[in-house]
Amino acid sequence: MRIVVFDAYQVGVEQAGMVREISSLIPTPWRGTPWAMNWVVEHWPEVAVALAGPFDSGELRPLAELRLRPPVPVPRELLAAPENYAAHIAEMAAREASARAPNAGRSPREVGFFLKAPGSIVGPSDAIELPPWPGRRFDHEGELAFVIGRPAQAVEPEEALDYIFGYTCLLDITLRTTPEHREERPMRKSFATFTPVGPVLVTADEIPDPGDLGIRVWVNGELRQHSTTADMLVGVAELLAIASRVLPLAPGDLFTTGSPSGVGPIVPGDVVTVEIDRIGRMSLPVRTRAW
Amino acid sequence: MRIVVFDAYQVGVEQAGMVREISSLIPTPWRGTPWAMNWVVEHWPEVAVALAGPFDSGELRPLAELRLRPPVPVPRELLAAPENYAAHIAEMAAREASARAPNAGRSPREVGFFLKAPGSIVGPSDAIELPPWPGRRFDHEGELAFVIGRPAQAVEPEEALDYIFGYTCLLDITLRTTPEHREERPMRKSFATFTPVGPVLVTADEIPDPGDLGIRVWVNGELRQHSTTADMLVGVAELLAIASRVLPLAPGDLFTTGSPSGVGPIVPGDVVTVEIDRIGRMSLPVRTRAW
Repeated sequence: MRIVVFDAYQVGVEQAGMVREISSLIPTPWRGTPWAMNWVVEHWPEVAVALAGPFDSGELRPLAELRLRPPVPVPRELLAAPENYAAHIAEMAAREASARAPNAGRSPREVGFFLKAPGSIVGPSDAIELPPWPGRRFDHEGELAFVIGRPAQAVEPEEALDYIFGYTCLLDITLRTTPEHREERPMRKSFATFTPVGPVLVTADEIPDPGDLGIRVWVNGELRQHSTTADMLVGVAELLAIASRVLPLAPGDLFTTGSPSGVGPIVPGDVVTVEIDRIGRMSLPVRTRAW
Repeated sequence: MRIVVFDAYQVGVEQAGMVREISSLIPTPWRGTPWAMNWVVEHWPEVAVALAGPFDSGELRPLAELRLRPPVPVPRELLAAPENYAAHIAEMAAREASARAPNAGRSPREVGFFLKAPGSIVGPSDAIELPPWPGRRFDHEGELAFVIGRPAQAVEPEEALDYIFGYTCLLDITLRTTPEHREERPMRKSFATFTPVGPVLVTADEIPDPGDLGIRVWVNGELRQHSTTADMLVGVAELLAIASRVLPLAPGDLFTTGSPSGVGPIVPGDVVTVEIDRIGRMSLPVRTRAW
């Protein structure tokens, strides 16, 4: 099933470009708020049953006419795998040799996860806003992200996929370090609008193998990143298992899995597009932040 | 005013060791949930007016008889200043010389903030649970933390204190790195129970100068950390201002300001106590995690 959040935080199911609204299944006070999807994820078994029967859904609406919101607007946790593709580690090492931390080039199996601020999340109909910091470089990093479906505590990798609600695309926009500027990684990736998520959340039953998905990023129509999740050093199941040994993960938590190579700079006026097999594509303009 | 969250996430005001419950002022569905205090912080002007009039508060109850919850159980963001006291930077440099990252010893003015997982927060009546990771060291770091009171976007340091709702004590429990183990800082500090917060949230009007508070940490009654927030490299107002230029901060967001020197190891069986002037004191036992 392909779930979207749109307009006034309504929730809908998309099929062949048309959206059937399911907000009537969501109780107040969650309905019509950024937290609506947290409720849906946590109550998915009953929602799925209700979806199979008759309910008030209003008219079908074309996806293209909706203002798409992030499909998980306010996760409690936003976890992220550091460098998780060998080719991306190599390009980072070449670029930032003099500024690299001692843990550079180690996989998430060794260094675990970092965190981004949930307040950096925006949707497919929003813009990426770069702060006016002179001389600094901002990069696009296209990534597969997954949403936790049920409480996950000390989960084994073999069963970890059972804890995933669904998958979506994520752009991990990043302020690059320099030898002079060494901001903490979580801050460099947590500027407002630096985490576009979408366009849809595809439930896990439609993606039996998250380790075999093509992933592509274009800037102004030019292909910049072109890889497959098969090239991850640490796969989705093991990433989830590692984090679940640190703290219990909760329904709605969002985990982004790291970027393949081809990471490059973006500047105001660009348009960034990310696409992942079986999920879809979203394009966001890049602007200078107005504040 | 001294605010506590207790038992079934009831909210109360403490005075001279007695607690007056104010839950009746909180509407459903927030009342009696971990999100009750987020509502209180966001609606403080109207809550303050209601507190001045008559309302249903039930009987006064002794603070000592309550199970204290963290006064902000579920902040949207949990921001943290890295090394922010010169003496702590010196002790870390001496201890971990071979494993230090290139940004070690730089102040939050240069490196900004990092993030902890909100899911690591526990309350004064809970325990610190260390995962059974053989050979690894876990440290106590006692810190002053503040709670954002109203939306803060690109705030100037001179006006930043006006955006603070209140102050509390925070223990930033930390898995130390070694030359062989280089986990990401956010993960090392985000194990479940690694962020005890409390015992009370003191509103900002009672702490006109957060840069002049004594802070002390004991382990098993032995004084380990003894400093003052006057020794912070970057003060509360500037920390808030720096973060507000990265992303808008929201009511209820929690920001911890870094630890003074005296950081040291804790092991199961210890009792850790933190105390800050004008706020109070909390003690938590240390255990081995059962899962």
